[in-house]
Amino acid sequence: MAMITDRLIDRVKELSNPTVVGLDPREEYVPEFLINTHKALADAILAFNKGLIDAVYDIVPAVKPQIAFYERFGARGIECYAETVCYAKSKGLFVIGDIKRGDVASTAEAYAEAHLSEGGALEADFITLNPYLGADAVQPFVNNAKRYDKGLFVLVCTSNPGAGDLQNIETVNGKVYEVVGDKVSAWGADMIGKHGYSAVCAVAGATHPEQVRVLRKRMPHTFFLVPGYGAQGGKAEDVRCCFDKNGTGAIVNSSRGIIAAHKDAKYADFKPEQYALAAREAALEMKKELGKIL
Amino acid sequence: MAMITDRLIDRVKELSNPTVVGLDPREEYVPEFLINTHKALADAILAFNKGLIDAVYDIVPAVKPQIAFYERFGARGIECYAETVCYAKSKGLFVIGDIKRGDVASTAEAYAEAHLSEGGALEADFITLNPYLGADAVQPFVNNAKRYDKGLFVLVCTSNPGAGDLQNIETVNGKVYEVVGDKVSAWGADMIGKHGYSAVCAVAGATHPEQVRVLRKRMPHTFFLVPGYGAQGGKAEDVRCCFDKNGTGAIVNSSRGIIAAHKDAKYADFKPEQYALAAREAALEMKKELGKIL
Repeated sequence: MAMITDRLIDRVKELSNPTVVGLDPREEYVPEFLINTHKALADAILAFNKGLIDAVYDIVPAVKPQIAFYERFGARGIECYAETVCYAKSKGLFVIGDIKRGDVASTAEAYAEAHLSEGGALEADFITLNPYLGADAVQPFVNNAKRYDKGLFVLVCTSNPGAGDLQNIETVNGKVYEVVGDKVSAWGADMIGKHGYSAVCAVAGATHPEQVRVLRKRMPHTFFLVPGYGAQGGKAEDVRCCFDKNGTGAIVNSSRGIIAAHKDAKYADFKPEQYALAAREAALEMKKELGKIL
Repeated sequence: MAMITDRLIDRVKELSNPTVVGLDPREEYVPEFLINTHKALADAILAFNKGLIDAVYDIVPAVKPQIAFYERFGARGIECYAETVCYAKSKGLFVIGDIKRGDVASTAEAYAEAHLSEGGALEADFITLNPYLGADAVQPFVNNAKRYDKGLFVLVCTSNPGAGDLQNIETVNGKVYEVVGDKVSAWGADMIGKHGYSAVCAVAGATHPEQVRVLRKRMPHTFFLVPGYGAQGGKAEDVRCCFDKNGTGAIVNSSRGIIAAHKDAKYADFKPEQYALAAREAALEMKKELGKIL
């Protein structure tokens, strides 16, 4: 079986769609009828997610649940996260656990066991990671990626307005994000698949196209997860630079723009019960937009 | 009521002990009799923690549960984490949730709601945070610290061997950890209490005394959480530089050295059932060691 990044790229090609649906279930996105028909908000969110997954699993390759929106409910929220991950996998979707963990090696092992091992309590296909603690803190995840055919997305340049506070500081070897980019390339150098991309991937925000353009050249074997599209301000032309000349090498996440499409004036003719259909329409619209630039 | 860092410092003075007990319950630390008498490992860990808390709450000011060792069990583990936090608080201990989260602002709000708000599902007194995403990612936690009288420990220099990979890179304004230190000082500049220390605190590892010496001068109003003592290699003389000239301004964490003392040859005469007593002895020994240098 091909390695995970190869399989993800194959699926993107099969669907002609490099879109990831971000499952960030803020309370205000969840239709009232779901809140009213479930005892706990976490249960309503699980139903919301299942509806979304049912509506998009045949047109997008992956979903990215953001664990913070589950963790806020404590244990029940984490159960809801785990159930969402399982349900998405059962529908053939790749699951990127957006956990942004990062800790000293022995602690990182515990996180890796939870999120990136076979049978782990919160087992995803890929997870996001924070590089601030350095190589030995990333190594347990790299080990598990090799052992269990999993993938990582290490934060290089993020999509938030303050990303540059630390990431853009000028060092003797380029800006901090460039130095981190070089490290990420090195960490994944021996895990490159048939499509030319490693299982150690990077997060590169769509809100900073000038930076991503530099990174795309600097990291030719690193696959990118691109947040910031849509509601956060990134447009299709902004993400062109995330892809290689063959139109591969990246996937683009949209959360609010898809899962809260039913709140958007553009989809005002959809009833609340049709929230998932609105999400499907929005995902197809995003596929069309990305198709124009690839 | 005094603000949280003041209250923590008052308690340290009252006990003459700046020790934090790290509740990192690795499986191998948990005595067999506890594993055998509980259905699930997470339940054994909760019993283990309660025993430890009962044994040290009158001699140390704070505990620091590392959430990774709970998260590995999924929802049940998070429940165990929440119960540990509650139990420690009920005994008058300050709780530092070692979560090292860090995410874009809207996501950070969800984490802040969970960990740093009144009635939050996983409400601690302090939490640890990762600075890689910049100021806007830290702001929701600062807001909650102000609103709910909570505190933060932002990672500045960590105690792991690879800490320097990113943190020691030379920039135009000093090394990365120094630049981050300056930002942490600025973020907490308007939250300084009667003892001269802010509610926005920093993590500064005991394994790099030469760096911490620089930071102590550079960040006169920033209280330090010092990991890396004991099992990780830091000694009492190494942590002297974390404190100010009055012997305050820092607390020192030990995990394995205290909670796994019963596995140590030094405490070989303690029976497994006396694991908590061994922990108490080790905590008293650490207090004595730190007392020598303060």
